[in-house]
Amino acid sequence: MIFQGAHILSINQFEKENVKRLFDVADQMQPYALRRRVTRVLEGAILGNMFFEASTRTRVSFGSAFNLLGGEVRETAGFESSALVKGESLQDTARVLSGFSDVICMRHPAEGSVADFASASRVPVMNGGDGANEHPTQALLDLYTIRKEMAVNDRDIDGLRLAMVGDLRFGRTVHSLCKLLSLYENIEVVLVSPKELTLPYELVDDMRSAGVVVKVSEDLTQSITDVDIVYSTRIQEERFGSKQEADLYRGRFRLNQAIYTEFCQPNTVIMHPLPRDSRADANELSNDLDNNPNLAIFRQADNGVLVRMALFALVLDVAHCVDEYSHDVRWYNARPK
Amino acid sequence: MIFQGAHILSINQFEKENVKRLFDVADQMQPYALRRRVTRVLEGAILGNMFFEASTRTRVSFGSAFNLLGGEVRETAGFESSALVKGESLQDTARVLSGFSDVICMRHPAEGSVADFASASRVPVMNGGDGANEHPTQALLDLYTIRKEMAVNDRDIDGLRLAMVGDLRFGRTVHSLCKLLSLYENIEVVLVSPKELTLPYELVDDMRSAGVVVKVSEDLTQSITDVDIVYSTRIQEERFGSKQEADLYRGRFRLNQAIYTEFCQPNTVIMHPLPRDSRADANELSNDLDNNPNLAIFRQADNGVLVRMALFALVLDVAHCVDEYSHDVRWYNARPK
Amino acid sequence: MIFQGAHILSINQFEKENVKRLFDVADQMQPYALRRRVTRVLEGAILGNMFFEASTRTRVSFGSAFNLLGGEVRETAGFESSALVKGESLQDTARVLSGFSDVICMRHPAEGSVADFASASRVPVMNGGDGANEHPTQALLDLYTIRKEMAVNDRDIDGLRLAMVGDLRFGRTVHSLCKLLSLYENIEVVLVSPKELTLPYELVDDMRSAGVVVKVSEDLTQSITDVDIVYSTRIQEERFGSKQEADLYRGRFRLNQAIYTEFCQPNTVIMHPLPRDSRADANELSNDLDNNPNLAIFRQADNGVLVRMALFALVLDVAHCVDEYSHDVRWYNARPK
Repeated sequence: MIFQGAHILSINQFEKENVKRLFDVADQMQPYALRRRVTRVLEGAILGNMFFEASTRTRVSFGSAFNLLGGEVRETAGFESSALVKGESLQDTARVLSGFSDVICMRHPAEGSVADFASASRVPVMNGGDGANEHPTQALLDLYTIRKEMAVNDRDIDGLRLAMVGDLRFGRTVHSLCKLLSLYENIEVVLVSPKELTLPYELVDDMRSAGVVVKVSEDLTQSITDVDIVYSTRIQEERFGSKQEADLYRGRFRLNQAIYTEFCQPNTVIMHPLPRDSRADANELSNDLDNNPNLAIFRQADNGVLVRMALFALVLDVAHCVDEYSHDVRWYNARPK
Repeated sequence: MIFQGAHILSINQFEKENVKRLFDVADQMQPYALRRRVTRVLEGAILGNMFFEASTRTRVSFGSAFNLLGGEVRETAGFESSALVKGESLQDTARVLSGFSDVICMRHPAEGSVADFASASRVPVMNGGDGANEHPTQALLDLYTIRKEMAVNDRDIDGLRLAMVGDLRFGRTVHSLCKLLSLYENIEVVLVSPKELTLPYELVDDMRSAGVVVKVSEDLTQSITDVDIVYSTRIQEERFGSKQEADLYRGRFRLNQAIYTEFCQPNTVIMHPLPRDSRADANELSNDLDNNPNLAIFRQADNGVLVRMALFALVLDVAHCVDEYSHDVRWYNARPK
Repeated sequence: MIFQGAHILSINQFEKENVKRLFDVADQMQPYALRRRVTRVLEGAILGNMFFEASTRTRVSFGSAFNLLGGEVRETAGFESSALVKGESLQDTARVLSGFSDVICMRHPAEGSVADFASASRVPVMNGGDGANEHPTQALLDLYTIRKEMAVNDRDIDGLRLAMVGDLRFGRTVHSLCKLLSLYENIEVVLVSPKELTLPYELVDDMRSAGVVVKVSEDLTQSITDVDIVYSTRIQEERFGSKQEADLYRGRFRLNQAIYTEFCQPNTVIMHPLPRDSRADANELSNDLDNNPNLAIFRQADNGVLVRMALFALVLDVAHCVDEYSHDVRWYNARPK
């Protein structure tokens, strides 16, 4: 895969060297995301931020990333009763919208829709999530977070031991992360979920073929004693046959500070793709973890801006000249220097 | 009509020399729309892009056109349950919103609403569509497309032979285009529609008074044998008294590649205001035309950006200095040089 | 209160010297708001304009103010069926969104929500309205308007005589303005409302403790004979027990030109927080006042941009260098020089 001019549709496009290049550029974006510097490299460029399904955080993250490179954003937020309902094909929509911008980010509820759209677009398209199918930038920012959190202890992604917790059957984030992890060496993964929500067998098989050591468990506390990272995800009640069934599992996959202290290693990192359900009987990560310095869930969200900036910089081929068009920040900045 | 500071509300404001001036400026915008150059001439200016009715493509086209001149866009997309429902007059809304921007583009479902709004606005207002009434930039981009497509064969708008197909009774686009065509010499128009959906008699009469040769037909294939352009429009089923009635006409005004090959001249241009209904039993232009180089429907959409850029440049009186504030594009550009 | 880096949540944060500083900076913003100059001081900065409740005018006013300082705006307009409905806490939302921007403006229907949000935000937060609780920028722009209108006659806020008319019980705007006025000397306020909608007693008490002379009346015409400003507000029919009850009051608190001419001083200024209900049987300020030069309601809306620009400039600490990064306006400008 060469980034320049490419559509970013699936995690399957990425090989290890692409991931490395992407993450190195993401590191390079740090001074801009932290507002130590301003760059205007994309001054005059337009992102078409086409969200045909509501998603405030992902939409704003893409838009801010583009603004931070100096570009402008034209936007659709949520399904408008517009052309698509008049029978227009996604290809026609793409042919028209790609005349208005230099790159398009698209979210759409239908699986495969973003690839259909991209097939007719005249500018690069990034998949911001197409239903249950793919959300590649989420998996990339997750892996980038793993890299950064491991680097704190002078570790690499190779050799990682990770527990994945929650709904492993339907979570597209988890599936994509499994594929990405398979690119690395000496990975150990513990899959912790109710038996109704285990990871699809093909994915387990693919990981094992790639050399990943995979364990399966229904017990949270036993599974997190010897891992570098606990990656927690939401279990949606609707996934179970009945409320009674869902109630059987209530709280059994929830991590809180007491469990962390008793069972985890002292620097085990906690991740979550967000949003976290903070209601008392539902949350997968208790709010009492908020002061735990190893809770990386908001660093994850911040990393999303870096990864998206890097993707824009690579696809539009400006990674080499971001600094050239930069200047100091003029305003008050609360972020740490 | 002088452009500087003017409201652009109706196609009736335009005389032949205004249209020529507008199109010459639109030509001048080409390097910016194709991302060969970036201009910052409107740096610091704000467009109030007020769409009180959903329309992704027109809204984004106006917004992108303004961004391409270096300006910022503040926006409303679709009717919010806001001030207007609390009994605020359009004049009050205009007095307030015109304090926030340098120019306003407005779409609203009620006929005449944009003119009412403009009457109280302190900045120039452009009509982005007011119900069944007017959508002047659509008619202008249609005519600009005709000019460009004719120029390929060293022809001018004068002498044009055009077939208009579909719902000619309710289509505001068609009505406005008829008025614009009446400004030119030696125009021949064939009106092809079901008898329930013929062009209003006054419009036919006006065209004939202006010297246009007008023919009326219910037969598609006979009407397109000797024209430069086929301008196809949607026939909405709701326009007929019953589904049975609509079914009588199903497919009779649909153009596909086989019909094109058999009946059209080899370089007859195909236009459509979009969106095109691509469902199997409904589409007015078959998808099998997509590889026909004379299918101009997406060039039409692209031309919309040029025409809207030109309108902004003329109304805000910067057409003469767009190049002065320009610089090279720094990023990857897939568009043809 | 020091502005730099502060959250702007409540009118209670403001003392007299803060208000003076804010208004002096607002005066300084005039050349930019009137498009005599363009400033780029906030080039590269991002406002997160998070409106979780629809409000076109306030949202666009904040956004335009930020654009006029050279910054970019990322936006949410109205409640999306997004993270918040999946049980995410406002604190989590704040932790995520504050990673995307340099300052956040937020509107939300729940009282106290903006303060909850701000408690977890890493960047300054401005309250754009949190239900019935606070809308501090409205009160500040009202007071700034009073200052400017009084200055025309070489008067100061001290010594002001003001009639407040309409729904004084539920109007958060009125409550906040009462608090701000209490900071000044020799203020006289006449409260004119139906007895069901009188100002809460605590507020009356607080004003009197602060030295404000407060009178209470149910009679409009008697109350406006000797005031500098009539501040009119909407009476919502839903506030009354029944339509019959509401009908008893219909028109009794409505100001029109005839009443103005008969009862007001010749230069009494008319204010209203807008939107004004312009329907025949409902409007609180008649449309026949539109040519009255003392009708300040649209100057009020314009002043909102100045006050919001000043808040951004102070919170982001660029008030001292706005001019340094400025240049001339290049485009047609209809506004008076």
